[in-house]
Amino acid sequence: MTNRLERQLEFIIEVDRVKDVFRKSKQFHQDRYENDAEHSWHIALMAMVLAEHADGKPDVLRVIKMLLIHDLVEIDTGDTIVYRKNEETERAEAAAAERIFGILPVEQGREFLDLWKEFEHGNTAEARFARAVDRLEPLMQNIHRNGETWVENNVTSDQVKSVNSRIGDASVVLWEYALSEIERCVSEGFLTSNGTE
Amino acid sequence: MTNRLERQLEFIIEVDRVKDVFRKSKQFHQDRYENDAEHSWHIALMAMVLAEHADGKPDVLRVIKMLLIHDLVEIDTGDTIVYRKNEETERAEAAAAERIFGILPVEQGREFLDLWKEFEHGNTAEARFARAVDRLEPLMQNIHRNGETWVENNVTSDQVKSVNSRIGDASVVLWEYALSEIERCVSEGFLTSNGTE
Repeated sequence: MTNRLERQLEFIIEVDRVKDVFRKSKQFHQDRYENDAEHSWHIALMAMVLAEHADGKPDVLRVIKMLLIHDLVEIDTGDTIVYRKNEETERAEAAAAERIFGILPVEQGREFLDLWKEFEHGNTAEARFARAVDRLEPLMQNIHRNGETWVENNVTSDQVKSVNSRIGDASVVLWEYALSEIERCVSEGFLTSNGTE
Repeated sequence: MTNRLERQLEFIIEVDRVKDVFRKSKQFHQDRYENDAEHSWHIALMAMVLAEHADGKPDVLRVIKMLLIHDLVEIDTGDTIVYRKNEETERAEAAAAERIFGILPVEQGREFLDLWKEFEHGNTAEARFARAVDRLEPLMQNIHRNGETWVENNVTSDQVKSVNSRIGDASVVLWEYALSEIERCVSEGFLTSNGTE
């Protein structure tokens, strides 16, 4: 076996650990928190289904690649709820990306690291759409579960709109859907403009 | 919201159920059975990492699309261990594919159904590589876990070679790796040529 294949197989075994990183949002149908592998599968499939609604005609393969790897850093850092992200979590995630993608053959590791950074920066049509879909899944889960995680974390409708505004950066159609659903949640009492305290 | 988007979102919510379909093989690092969503994420990522070893230069986007949807039929049928597949399970899976992909807008549902059938038939470079990676993950898991599932299911080395021979249909390099690891498992006593009875 070549050293190149050996490093690729070592990477494949290492990333298995993301199946034990649990998120703060629950699945649609099951009453348990979702892990990063399940989430990454779901949003990659969502990108495939919803690509026609993306503004700027992103390359779907690059979008899906970003989504498949975007959460691997959490093997080292754990999941941080989007409402609590700061510079310290960003530094820790950057170090984790160096370690984890560093397991791969050098130029392949560089390609994966660049894709991850592109996702984090959100400056291309691909990264914008990937980031939109990454937000859309937990938003849809919360809508489906009558705002369960919002209530648990005392999140307001203004915070939900702010955190999810990146959906609007990538797709007029999906943002229109999201905004109307957020308003519906407010009117049905699953989400308040002032939090629960 | 258009009826088209509505059907796409309904599909996205429905496929969440695959997170509760558990396989017969365990993860690399955790002592629990893997579900279909975790498995599908892992093999899509594997296709991205290992694409250079595929014979016949498959289109990686089509490979990944197949892998993201290939197990959705098990929402209706449950997981069947590869050593027990028969005509009845095939008929049930075909009916499940019609129902699940039928939730999508008509021509998109047809596209997904065609991809799923292409995967099942295994006649294109994309389907061959997708089917190879689908086998490679549980093979690597069993190797990593000293043949645990093989022992549990009384599986012989001839069966392992036969079931995994589709790796050889897609990649000389990966099949060479797989065969040498299977032989190592036999020589280390994790796998027998006559089963455990």
